[in-house]
Amino acid sequence: MLTDEYFMRIALQQAQLAFEADEIPIGAVVVAQNTVIAKGFNQVERLQDVTAHAEILAITAASNYLGSKYLKDCTLYVTLEPCPMCGGAIYWGQLGRLVYGAADIKRGCESMNLNVLHPKTNIIRGVLGEESRKLIRLFFEQKRL
Amino acid sequence: MLTDEYFMRIALQQAQLAFEADEIPIGAVVVAQNTVIAKGFNQVERLQDVTAHAEILAITAASNYLGSKYLKDCTLYVTLEPCPMCGGAIYWGQLGRLVYGAADIKRGCESMNLNVLHPKTNIIRGVLGEESRKLIRLFFEQKRL
Repeated sequence: MLTDEYFMRIALQQAQLAFEADEIPIGAVVVAQNTVIAKGFNQVERLQDVTAHAEILAITAASNYLGSKYLKDCTLYVTLEPCPMCGGAIYWGQLGRLVYGAADIKRGCESMNLNVLHPKTNIIRGVLGEESRKLIRLFFEQKRL
Repeated sequence: MLTDEYFMRIALQQAQLAFEADEIPIGAVVVAQNTVIAKGFNQVERLQDVTAHAEILAITAASNYLGSKYLKDCTLYVTLEPCPMCGGAIYWGQLGRLVYGAADIKRGCESMNLNVLHPKTNIIRGVLGEESRKLIRLFFEQKRL
């Protein structure tokens, strides 16, 4: 039951909230001991703050919840490959696992071949990637109308 | 009067506040039209939040002040070379100028040869770098006692 897909679907629900708020639809959750301890969705437009990516908000919320800046026993699920900013935050937080959905060819830290992530962070790629990609594509198609 | 050294000295005062709060002493200010519109110092320990770097706090504060996520006409002064996380935030914010003090050989995004910063951001390096380095060295020497 509590598979990576299960938690990624909760991250996708967060992305859907971003979509409904007219934000680029990206969502994230942090999981510890099979429990969601933090959620976040992209709020760059609402807050007019480029640092308000889903991952940054979820990491800050998870640290608040645990009272710890390190998230070694946590998994971050995010619907899109993290950018260098978020990759850097994942590095500093020493997340045990990172699970992402769609690759971000242009601004994803792995796709850009940037060695930003911590070597101890286990990375799983492509979980529900197609659903994530579809939602983002739909968002930009609507923008073009 | 309103030179890069002048504003970097204000960033160093922010670093001093971090030092007094027992944080790694790094400070930042954002300047628009020769006016300081935002300040920040490292608060990772106090907030137990790895995203609370001086630059991130200063960028968020500057965007709040201006009501704009883009900071094209702004200069970010920071006492230490930004890490990839902060470099990524500087990229997204499209800062017009970045002025930093000491290089960070281990975790600075330029020192790591990571192509994170925006090509349109003008970068000035080494402003009051020795003073910044001394303060950081003093911090870690005290920690070792």
